[in-house]
Amino acid sequence: MIKAKKSQVFVIGGTHGNEFTGVYLIKKLRSQNLKKNYNKISPFFELGNEEAFRLNRRYVDHDLNRCFSKDFLLEAKKKLEEKGEGFLEHEEKLALNFDKLFKEEKADFIIDLHTTTSQMGPTLILSHKDHLSLTVAAHLKKAFPALKVICEFKELEDNYCLFTQAQAGILLEFGPVPQGVLKSELFLLMEKVVKETLSFLESAGEGEVGPYKMEELETFHVLENLDYPRDEEGNLRGMIHPDREGKDFLPIKDGEPLFICFDGETIPWKGPTVWPIFMNEAAYYEKSVAMVLTSKQKGF
Amino acid sequence: MIKAKKSQVFVIGGTHGNEFTGVYLIKKLRSQNLKKNYNKISPFFELGNEEAFRLNRRYVDHDLNRCFSKDFLLEAKKKLEEKGEGFLEHEEKLALNFDKLFKEEKADFIIDLHTTTSQMGPTLILSHKDHLSLTVAAHLKKAFPALKVICEFKELEDNYCLFTQAQAGILLEFGPVPQGVLKSELFLLMEKVVKETLSFLESAGEGEVGPYKMEELETFHVLENLDYPRDEEGNLRGMIHPDREGKDFLPIKDGEPLFICFDGETIPWKGPTVWPIFMNEAAYYEKSVAMVLTSKQKGF
Repeated sequence: MIKAKKSQVFVIGGTHGNEFTGVYLIKKLRSQNLKKNYNKISPFFELGNEEAFRLNRRYVDHDLNRCFSKDFLLEAKKKLEEKGEGFLEHEEKLALNFDKLFKEEKADFIIDLHTTTSQMGPTLILSHKDHLSLTVAAHLKKAFPALKVICEFKELEDNYCLFTQAQAGILLEFGPVPQGVLKSELFLLMEKVVKETLSFLESAGEGEVGPYKMEELETFHVLENLDYPRDEEGNLRGMIHPDREGKDFLPIKDGEPLFICFDGETIPWKGPTVWPIFMNEAAYYEKSVAMVLTSKQKGF
Repeated sequence: MIKAKKSQVFVIGGTHGNEFTGVYLIKKLRSQNLKKNYNKISPFFELGNEEAFRLNRRYVDHDLNRCFSKDFLLEAKKKLEEKGEGFLEHEEKLALNFDKLFKEEKADFIIDLHTTTSQMGPTLILSHKDHLSLTVAAHLKKAFPALKVICEFKELEDNYCLFTQAQAGILLEFGPVPQGVLKSELFLLMEKVVKETLSFLESAGEGEVGPYKMEELETFHVLENLDYPRDEEGNLRGMIHPDREGKDFLPIKDGEPLFICFDGETIPWKGPTVWPIFMNEAAYYEKSVAMVLTSKQKGF
């Protein structure tokens, strides 16, 4: 008798070291010895970047959630072969280790846990367009109506994120949580969402998965990033306007206030109606991203 | 004719490098060339820790707002004399420079600008008990009723804070603002409070200062710090309870939920009614401070 292969599900917290929620949630889930609850899936609970967590920083040398492009991994492998491990930067080493782990264990699904300083509430980000990932999103939206679903579909080979290293997966992004802080309400909600996802994946093979009207699901599709106003030297010239602050997922129309400059000038949004998210994310100041513009849609 | 000495007023932003509000507010105030607006006072606008700001970190080697104790300054001076400037750590150098600046310019009043991840709103901290500092606090409370006044009176020679290096001063502490983020509403309010303080100090010598019923002023007096629940190795064992999160300045009574542990246990507050502040301040995790307990009082 051939034993059916279990689905290998990786739950990763602390891909960014100063996002405490994922780190402590992984520690908690590990302590609960959950493997025994599942037959069809085999869950792994991994810490993404323990050294960055120890330093209370997003990363040591590179943002680990940007380290999984083909080029980055190839470059790191080349360095490893030519010069040895001692020459690898911290996240080069981590990315190679995760790449190896996901391949050896044949990772089927990755759940990557993040927090944002934006007032986005509980959100789920999709990068894969496979049936399982979409169904998981549809199921979670049904189970947690407050959850927003963000779509940033990419060809897998073009993707640089950790959770796109399996054929299916989701990224959970909960806010607002300052860096280096735990907010219990969002922590406990994220735990519920992770456990619901594991239960769903456990039952997904058994025909227990109900029908989902995917075409009716509210989704936010990423259009482009928008930077803060800056001067010629690249210094900040303003901030998110008080009228806009905290209004992630609410539409902004042509002419409505978007930024307020230090000199008092208000800069309005110019363009078609869009739905900004990731507004005022602390880690995005250095990435020149004041917000990510999306369009609100039905379905994928 | 002897020209009366102007009051030397120092406004300092970015004493902590990742508290952007103060940094950008100082840059803004500098650009406005305000000195000409004042006759009785001479305002200086200084950046506290530019290197830490560049690194987007609270500090490089030491928390600059803990570097002004007698012992710390003496130790740094000794090191400077015996070994030379190259051996000084970053904040040792900064503290000596500020110490020298405040003495040379005969600093009369310091306004130190801070933000917190706690949901404290706009607050003012007093460490001095001199008449001018108290009157400034009373005036600002009248001008900005939402402003909370926190008293942590210490003997000046025992104090290690930057703003206690003059005979009078206040610390502004606005929240919630994540580290490395600007919130325009609080930024603009802090600007108003700073300018109101400068105007008040300008008029303080002219008998224009109205009467303040100091004994009726609502104040919060610091009692002690309270740590998070921790295990034997000092690791976090829980977080602020959802029922308590964000309720700075609201009383907690004996038996009410205070922390929730990762294992599900709720830890209630045991003791007399207190008013917690600085709940869930990111920078205080490493200082073993989950919150600061205060008593609500009338007057100083």
